[in-house]
Amino acid sequence: MTATEPTKTGEETQTDPYKPRKEDKFSFGLWTMGNRGHDGFGEATRRGFKPAYLLEKLAGLGAWGVNFQDDDLVASEAPLAERSRAARQFKQQVEDNGLVTPMGTTALFVKPVFKEGAFTAVDPGVRAFTLQKTLRAIDFAAEVGAPIFNLWGAREGVDAEGSKDPLEALKRYREAIGFICRYVEDQGYNIKFALEPKPNEPRSDSYLPTAGHALAFIATLDQPDRVGVNLELAHETIANLNFYHEVAQALEAGKLFHIDLNDQKVMRYDQNMRFGSESLKIAFFTVKLLEEKNYAGPRHFDVHPYRTEAEADVWDAALGSMRTYKILKEKAQRFAADPRIEAILGQNRRSDLPGDLLTARYSPETARRLKDYRFDPDRLARKGYRYEKLDQLTIEYILGIA
Amino acid sequence: MTATEPTKTGEETQTDPYKPRKEDKFSFGLWTMGNRGHDGFGEATRRGFKPAYLLEKLAGLGAWGVNFQDDDLVASEAPLAERSRAARQFKQQVEDNGLVTPMGTTALFVKPVFKEGAFTAVDPGVRAFTLQKTLRAIDFAAEVGAPIFNLWGAREGVDAEGSKDPLEALKRYREAIGFICRYVEDQGYNIKFALEPKPNEPRSDSYLPTAGHALAFIATLDQPDRVGVNLELAHETIANLNFYHEVAQALEAGKLFHIDLNDQKVMRYDQNMRFGSESLKIAFFTVKLLEEKNYAGPRHFDVHPYRTEAEADVWDAALGSMRTYKILKEKAQRFAADPRIEAILGQNRRSDLPGDLLTARYSPETARRLKDYRFDPDRLARKGYRYEKLDQLTIEYILGIA
Amino acid sequence: MTATEPTKTGEETQTDPYKPRKEDKFSFGLWTMGNRGHDGFGEATRRGFKPAYLLEKLAGLGAWGVNFQDDDLVASEAPLAERSRAARQFKQQVEDNGLVTPMGTTALFVKPVFKEGAFTAVDPGVRAFTLQKTLRAIDFAAEVGAPIFNLWGAREGVDAEGSKDPLEALKRYREAIGFICRYVEDQGYNIKFALEPKPNEPRSDSYLPTAGHALAFIATLDQPDRVGVNLELAHETIANLNFYHEVAQALEAGKLFHIDLNDQKVMRYDQNMRFGSESLKIAFFTVKLLEEKNYAGPRHFDVHPYRTEAEADVWDAALGSMRTYKILKEKAQRFAADPRIEAILGQNRRSDLPGDLLTARYSPETARRLKDYRFDPDRLARKGYRYEKLDQLTIEYILGIA
Amino acid sequence: MTATEPTKTGEETQTDPYKPRKEDKFSFGLWTMGNRGHDGFGEATRRGFKPAYLLEKLAGLGAWGVNFQDDDLVASEAPLAERSRAARQFKQQVEDNGLVTPMGTTALFVKPVFKEGAFTAVDPGVRAFTLQKTLRAIDFAAEVGAPIFNLWGAREGVDAEGSKDPLEALKRYREAIGFICRYVEDQGYNIKFALEPKPNEPRSDSYLPTAGHALAFIATLDQPDRVGVNLELAHETIANLNFYHEVAQALEAGKLFHIDLNDQKVMRYDQNMRFGSESLKIAFFTVKLLEEKNYAGPRHFDVHPYRTEAEADVWDAALGSMRTYKILKEKAQRFAADPRIEAILGQNRRSDLPGDLLTARYSPETARRLKDYRFDPDRLARKGYRYEKLDQLTIEYILGIA
Repeated sequence: MTATEPTKTGEETQTDPYKPRKEDKFSFGLWTMGNRGHDGFGEATRRGFKPAYLLEKLAGLGAWGVNFQDDDLVASEAPLAERSRAARQFKQQVEDNGLVTPMGTTALFVKPVFKEGAFTAVDPGVRAFTLQKTLRAIDFAAEVGAPIFNLWGAREGVDAEGSKDPLEALKRYREAIGFICRYVEDQGYNIKFALEPKPNEPRSDSYLPTAGHALAFIATLDQPDRVGVNLELAHETIANLNFYHEVAQALEAGKLFHIDLNDQKVMRYDQNMRFGSESLKIAFFTVKLLEEKNYAGPRHFDVHPYRTEAEADVWDAALGSMRTYKILKEKAQRFAADPRIEAILGQNRRSDLPGDLLTARYSPETARRLKDYRFDPDRLARKGYRYEKLDQLTIEYILGIA
Repeated sequence: MTATEPTKTGEETQTDPYKPRKEDKFSFGLWTMGNRGHDGFGEATRRGFKPAYLLEKLAGLGAWGVNFQDDDLVASEAPLAERSRAARQFKQQVEDNGLVTPMGTTALFVKPVFKEGAFTAVDPGVRAFTLQKTLRAIDFAAEVGAPIFNLWGAREGVDAEGSKDPLEALKRYREAIGFICRYVEDQGYNIKFALEPKPNEPRSDSYLPTAGHALAFIATLDQPDRVGVNLELAHETIANLNFYHEVAQALEAGKLFHIDLNDQKVMRYDQNMRFGSESLKIAFFTVKLLEEKNYAGPRHFDVHPYRTEAEADVWDAALGSMRTYKILKEKAQRFAADPRIEAILGQNRRSDLPGDLLTARYSPETARRLKDYRFDPDRLARKGYRYEKLDQLTIEYILGIA
Repeated sequence: MTATEPTKTGEETQTDPYKPRKEDKFSFGLWTMGNRGHDGFGEATRRGFKPAYLLEKLAGLGAWGVNFQDDDLVASEAPLAERSRAARQFKQQVEDNGLVTPMGTTALFVKPVFKEGAFTAVDPGVRAFTLQKTLRAIDFAAEVGAPIFNLWGAREGVDAEGSKDPLEALKRYREAIGFICRYVEDQGYNIKFALEPKPNEPRSDSYLPTAGHALAFIATLDQPDRVGVNLELAHETIANLNFYHEVAQALEAGKLFHIDLNDQKVMRYDQNMRFGSESLKIAFFTVKLLEEKNYAGPRHFDVHPYRTEAEADVWDAALGSMRTYKILKEKAQRFAADPRIEAILGQNRRSDLPGDLLTARYSPETARRLKDYRFDPDRLARKGYRYEKLDQLTIEYILGIA
Repeated sequence: MTATEPTKTGEETQTDPYKPRKEDKFSFGLWTMGNRGHDGFGEATRRGFKPAYLLEKLAGLGAWGVNFQDDDLVASEAPLAERSRAARQFKQQVEDNGLVTPMGTTALFVKPVFKEGAFTAVDPGVRAFTLQKTLRAIDFAAEVGAPIFNLWGAREGVDAEGSKDPLEALKRYREAIGFICRYVEDQGYNIKFALEPKPNEPRSDSYLPTAGHALAFIATLDQPDRVGVNLELAHETIANLNFYHEVAQALEAGKLFHIDLNDQKVMRYDQNMRFGSESLKIAFFTVKLLEEKNYAGPRHFDVHPYRTEAEADVWDAALGSMRTYKILKEKAQRFAADPRIEAILGQNRRSDLPGDLLTARYSPETARRLKDYRFDPDRLARKGYRYEKLDQLTIEYILGIA
């Protein structure tokens, strides 16, 4: 097959219910389908693509947005005029393809200067350079009109434990985030920041390793409202955490500014696989959550095609990710409407205890009543929850049988 | 050997520098040395001990505090008078042995009533019963004079993912914590709460799985000042997180209310092994951190002796934990004073860039200067950090060679 | 709902294609649906069932075989006559329900006597007692007519590393297996042994932790033909290994004597969840492999219903496991027949190199030709394998879309 | 400090007991200290070194052997004469530095041609090319005089599970190993092969993921005697297996042909850290085992210096690895001679049962006696093993206190 042939997976007719559409708000980074297949043990297997071609192809597949990383478009050391020209050109190309740029970011991990860290580097000169690169990338994002600026702290961490005081490192991190928040405020940019946690790799232990740590850190900032999280399925899965729960805690705190959907085998090196290729149950519940809680942000796919793919075929990774999202979304809607599910959940919520005990709203009277009430814990313990049946129904929805 | 023989490990003479003393603030739960060696696959191998004997033995070994779990001392369903009598008796026994009770807790996981959760159970009757048991245990703690009340959310989580809405679960959790905070305030108790995170076991996925998640959750409470965390080495290690970093983030946030020192193989079932028996490097840096940052709370050892131990020999697990703490503390002091360490760290902090760039304090002028400055990132990248040497020195301190 | 109502999951009409039938060779242990919901942190939540009731219920659901563990039926310390009577009674009950007993085993982990190990215990008296219990259970299995005797080395391992010489432990293990092989031979029993590996829990590190280690050990036995492996999905998943690959290596070696199908979150405490409840992709490929390679042994489900289930509802765990197997089997057959799959695989196998180079059969001439041939590795590297498309098709089969 | 200053760690005086010496049989690969600090997320941070310089430096530090990977010295596509000249030149350099070359290997993972696998690639042309590269590297090894040829199956595995039949893959692997065994035999080379297992990375799942799987596979070869394993601490630790047990099983089977000592955080991306920098307890027992069981092969350190190190300082990683080995060796000797250890182990081995029961050597009479003997399992269960004390002693030896 060649690249010009239409890629038909499943039944992609004109009325294909799983065909990606703008209103699905699917986005990709230039670095995803543009990934050249290089890894820690081997050379690149593809030549990559020009941004213009990536935009055109992704638009053609039904994507809504395309994100950028500064160095994909212009060297951060380039003169201001050149950077500004690159930003205008990219913005024009994005618009020409009917796309938007929901997010931008800066690479604080590729160049050797970042080998010891970036915002938390022990060398103050490296920290200053990091700020410069970030400010320039924020200007670029503002010029392009990207409302979210993503910060992945790739090399913020340690290999040799004695090399940094972790309290000092958190203070430096906080100062730097405070600095760029003030900068954005002063410039009047309509930009918010998303911290992207990851537990390790490329450092032995990273600071802010999970969604929880990032959310806790944000609560200690001077301007917490301007900062949220970007949660990546692969990263939380490397931490062996339940991505669905991670997303839920961020949503509940009003802090889910961005999401990176992809996949990953648990507790392994970073894989960035096609969304839905491994963790089907987690993917199902995550899609259900995003849709039911009306998450309004981009559905971004941080997916790197396998190294085995030729240039012509990498698009299967993008299309497959979007299709699987829509397939799971449809399943989630049918699941939510299934009366058998609600029958189980409803019965479990029921109680015949006096109504005034069934509240967790404090009053001295409630506390007194509660403390004195004669419960029958053995009777409460006899309830059967029918979760085997509930979970089997879940699995049969996923399998397309229910 | 018998229990009456003195347990001599290493050189425990009168002048033994590693002999535990009251001022070390070492504490144990009744359930630690009292553990009967039962596990998920096998029956108890020991008969356990009466509280009075545990207090006497632990005091004899040099412990400073002994903590309790409600059911260790009196059934929570017992009448008020009986509970109150048990509290007074325990308090007297503690004092008679020259001990204190720095912490109390309640078991919300043993009885079948908690099989679906406790504060986050879907059955409102179970939630009400959980509150009752907790209030009664708080009263008990107040009577005993325990300033910290620990909350381990053992069964707050799910096995079947569809069984609970995770946002709803967090809301219930918050309401319950809010309730008991108000209760303690109303009663005028001098009690703070410590949330003890754990990623899983006995549930497939627990809510508030790590230090980060608990800290983030606390920031959303009505009375965040009354709530902190109790971090357990084994629990964060099950999550494959760096316990030293976990403790550091909690300390930096002013939220390290309690610490459970023990040990664990990474990513395995909960083991509660003797402190220092596995993770020597993490243990070294954790002790160093607690001492250098003047952590003033108890050094609690949540250690369960191996099932292979006879009643007479379980004390080796307590004594060994305390000794290893003191051995590591001494190493940490010598490490901090070693000029070779500071030579490396000091050189790495040095920079010859203009001083006004080396700050992360924001001003429009600093931002402008930073953005325009001509850095030489290649030159910055050439610095060698000598971390192999630093880390080898660390290891040689741990090995007792440096 | 009550226990007497028919449990209908999905569309279980008379013509339900996923209804379990005898020819599916589905089996369960008495200890699976009979599990009482006890765990390391909590008490039993169910009363359990009598063997006769378990046999009747499992037969009614469509099971083909029911396995036993010695202590489920009679105390191993009971007099010979009593043990023999229990065996005959159980055999009769099995037959009365139209069932078979494909496997039997002995519990070498529950009683305190096994706290330090069983076949590899350092106390020779414990090793002798272990052999006795095993011989008695083998006699029982022979009387019942179970052709496979399973050996899970639950407590063969260590907590304190210095406690055993691991070479010595392997020698003792080998001697014990050699002993029982000779015994079975002498008795003329038609029994083979299956070693069931597990990486850890209830010991910190177990001997023979994975399929590979067990297979390697078997190759060193005196009678390797009488010994194979029983691979459990949950156990290999605790080791973060690919269960499908584990089964494949055992099959390829002719050593897959038994299989324990269940499920488990990766790298967590032992969970024994319903088959197909987590690892859908692995489950799909495992079923495909068993069916395509004509595995003739039992499809055993080592599943423990959630603690939240009432006695009446545990059967959902059994029925769901069997249904999911059959659903996946049907998908696997359609997948294998899909020409789009073969189109991709066939193209990838193609080569235009001279045929005599495309063999790995050694001859001096082939070696010479190969060494001198002028390959064009860059051209070989340009092949695109279309694995994103292949894997997306796989996922869409699992999701019921393809 | 500068590169010309002597690197003094601890007390490296002339009489330093931990100074590496030839008789320690320490070896390194050219690729270890020559590593340029490149990883999956960042560019190289060092320029690397010429082989001649590496040999000279490593010899100066006290190394005994230096290993090679084909592409380090000459392109495998180079004409025969050039390859032969490179081999002779390398051999001369090795000898000039008083070194030996205990092992050679070939890189079957860097070039894009290997993106789908090497010996198990589905394209027969790739398999043929793999054989060619391997044969040429074997010739090189023979010319240099390296007695061990190492085979790391880096890309033997899958990302998309449907892409390969795992039974077919194992057959191809076996054929290829069979081919090169026959080749070496025909050529009369004094070379044995060592298979180096790894569970994953750079593939999602690798074939022969652990020591056990490799040992099991070797037992199925035509010439099993010519093939053993090369076990790497980091690789088995990525699998969360106990490296000490892995080495023990290989030693017990007579198959430990080579060992790669380094270190790694459990269950993370491949780190190749300095030996002893993380897993001190495992390192202690591994060194103890190698020394006590008279392992005669090289102590190879597959260590990559941190990316933060300048060229001048990478040698600290080599020197530290060797020193830590010798420090642990000394501790192991003192541990083995400590009467407190043997007192515990000896008591645990003791039994007062009749001697004829305390054997696992089979005879019909022993079996009969055993089956009928009236054991008292409760009495056997009462033994206390004093493993807390034993393990605390172990830790105190490691900490340099005992």
